[in-house]
Amino acid sequence: MLQASVSGTVIKSSLIEPDGGVLVDARVPESERGSKTLEAELLPKVSLAKIDVEWVHVISEGWASPLKGFMRESEYLQSLHFNSLRMENGTVVNMSLPIVLAIDDETKERIGSSKDVGLVGPEGDLLAILRSIEIYKHNKEERIARTWGTTAPGLPYVDEFIIPAGNWLLGGDLEVLKPIKYNDGLDHYRLSPKQLRHEFDRRRADAVFAFQLRNPVHNGHALLMNDTRRRLLEMGYKNPILLLHPLGGFTKADDVPLSVRMEQHCKVLEDGVLDHETTIVAIFPSPMHYAGPTEVQWHAKARVNAGANFYIVGRDPAGMGHPTEKRDLYDPDHGKKVLSMAPGLEKLNILPFRLAAYDTVAKKMAFFDPSRSKEFLFISGTKMRTYARNGENPPDGFMCPGGWEVLVKYYERSVTEEAMSAAASA
Amino acid sequence: MLQASVSGTVIKSSLIEPDGGVLVDARVPESERGSKTLEAELLPKVSLAKIDVEWVHVISEGWASPLKGFMRESEYLQSLHFNSLRMENGTVVNMSLPIVLAIDDETKERIGSSKDVGLVGPEGDLLAILRSIEIYKHNKEERIARTWGTTAPGLPYVDEFIIPAGNWLLGGDLEVLKPIKYNDGLDHYRLSPKQLRHEFDRRRADAVFAFQLRNPVHNGHALLMNDTRRRLLEMGYKNPILLLHPLGGFTKADDVPLSVRMEQHCKVLEDGVLDHETTIVAIFPSPMHYAGPTEVQWHAKARVNAGANFYIVGRDPAGMGHPTEKRDLYDPDHGKKVLSMAPGLEKLNILPFRLAAYDTVAKKMAFFDPSRSKEFLFISGTKMRTYARNGENPPDGFMCPGGWEVLVKYYERSVTEEAMSAAASA
Repeated sequence: MLQASVSGTVIKSSLIEPDGGVLVDARVPESERGSKTLEAELLPKVSLAKIDVEWVHVISEGWASPLKGFMRESEYLQSLHFNSLRMENGTVVNMSLPIVLAIDDETKERIGSSKDVGLVGPEGDLLAILRSIEIYKHNKEERIARTWGTTAPGLPYVDEFIIPAGNWLLGGDLEVLKPIKYNDGLDHYRLSPKQLRHEFDRRRADAVFAFQLRNPVHNGHALLMNDTRRRLLEMGYKNPILLLHPLGGFTKADDVPLSVRMEQHCKVLEDGVLDHETTIVAIFPSPMHYAGPTEVQWHAKARVNAGANFYIVGRDPAGMGHPTEKRDLYDPDHGKKVLSMAPGLEKLNILPFRLAAYDTVAKKMAFFDPSRSKEFLFISGTKMRTYARNGENPPDGFMCPGGWEVLVKYYERSVTEEAMSAAASA
Repeated sequence: MLQASVSGTVIKSSLIEPDGGVLVDARVPESERGSKTLEAELLPKVSLAKIDVEWVHVISEGWASPLKGFMRESEYLQSLHFNSLRMENGTVVNMSLPIVLAIDDETKERIGSSKDVGLVGPEGDLLAILRSIEIYKHNKEERIARTWGTTAPGLPYVDEFIIPAGNWLLGGDLEVLKPIKYNDGLDHYRLSPKQLRHEFDRRRADAVFAFQLRNPVHNGHALLMNDTRRRLLEMGYKNPILLLHPLGGFTKADDVPLSVRMEQHCKVLEDGVLDHETTIVAIFPSPMHYAGPTEVQWHAKARVNAGANFYIVGRDPAGMGHPTEKRDLYDPDHGKKVLSMAPGLEKLNILPFRLAAYDTVAKKMAFFDPSRSKEFLFISGTKMRTYARNGENPPDGFMCPGGWEVLVKYYERSVTEEAMSAAASA
């Protein structure tokens, strides 16, 4: 469907087109880095926090295509009110989360009437130029209410990054001076949408199905992914490829850290629960908002840009407990409903999650059968973490032993560290 | 542009097409009223509050076309997240406010598994049938946050109609058994979109420009409407007609009541400030949400259904002060920006308000000239009400004398009534 010219040769790709037709790449070519860095050094500087660098990374590789930088006000308002952007040619692309850069009064003052600014990372390194900038008000209360559907205190992203942020937003086109690296031993998993598309083409994928996750993979997930592959083969696809795509940016304190999750995912592949040949494991560099139906659209849209034309969506995607009331923050069914109606995502095939639970008779994870509901055990993420933290084993067949061991060791370390830190401060 | 068949004759109309192509008319034809009323009497009953009747009125006449009844969940979610609805043919229509009917647990219980219900007005009269119903959760906090962009206490519509409402929403197709009447002496002003379209056609309008208001008309408004007409004539239209369209449903306690406003608007026409020949005064039956940029889309969309292809939008449309902070609830410029980008309203011509203020040199309302800003006086709605309440006169030329007298008399009555009620309760 898409004819793309890559390094001089025309390859025929059957991958879904990126939003807006062209994948954004805001990384300055190596040949121009020197001159642009010199230019950037003369511009007013804006200091980025770690979370801003994660967004620079996301934008620069085209996950948010056709967005070319931090949102200007017209993009911000469309995102907030319509979860989508209207392009100049009248087509609509999905864009449910505001991707914005907050600055304080002092920084605004310093920028003055400059048209471009230099963006400086937390270690003081010049990361990027932001061009043709626009500064507008950061109406925090309205942003929070329209994005999360609540203003209750205790939303992780809000408390960490919005409440303490500046009163202004700075929009503009991004030019990143060098690729963003984390040097945490996981950079080789951070494949850009372009790299993923190449890999899907190299494997001659005729369908790509993405699985977003921020938790360890248990056998219920695996059942689901393997069953999806089976269904795609039944539909006539010859070579469906799974993109197992853990989120790598900010997550809340009680989620399992990325390094542990990546180790766990590797074990799942080593143990043969998922098939190496037809699976690609990569890191999705976005931070989590925990904004439920609003955020699941972002999770899906970004994967379209990476070449996925099928998206698996489960119960309560990107959800969490209400921060101040004893209930889920979102209706667990709203995520898939909203996703299936989202403007700009009509071309994406949404695959609703079938409910998997532990079958106490078959002693394995299986699709829930309501006719014998008493024989099924639901093991939530919280429950799973409690097992691992207490050194208890989950029922046989819940997770492959290699993967489980990774979790147990992580919690052993945490408990020891907590005890040591408590002793040190006593 | 539109060929419509009305009572057997085909008339050619140049009016803008209603949303979805066909104007909804959910009023049962007179010939079927008897049989449908008999049917309704056998159905489970749902009691409507006054506000619900206002919405039944709005839906039944097609202001919300193509919406045929109270929203089912899929319409509700689209409205909440996208401010628009996707039609079966893939086109998108604007729908920014959830138009929903809340019911309590007991009513839900009583409905049971019935497919249709009868809707009963506050006086016990059977008003309508709701067909093929769907009951779903009324997630009040999320509805409020996403509609108003705040959850602060003190929002008039929220406090009066959402907080005390039931925990369920009831959607379905509406069949109204008899036209909604208010018997307040103003029913003849309540023209349906169909009646307005006939009137525009009768007057051979080649452009219709709508002016939404919930306040008395001062000479600044008049300047704006007359100037708009002048601009439309310059653009080449031969017969632009003004729809002066005060909102007639729920308004907050300190707004001027509808009957007083209608009397004031009549004086403005009598005094010749607006031209009788090219102006239609009618009542828009919708309640106010005071939801700023979200609500202005509803105000505009409903007027498209009535045949308006030009919409005048001012500073802070449908806005109010923040209920708990000393600031406007919405950025005063967001209304017109959001309206100009709203999905489904691309076909509507948005005419941004030029700022009018009292010119103390020319002693009349004039377009604000920043080069001599000190010579202008801004008279807000609050300021105007304070003048009228205190029996003071505003500067000469602010409002026509006949219109001003209506307001002064209203506030005289109010003050007397307040004093009497205070005396009675003392």
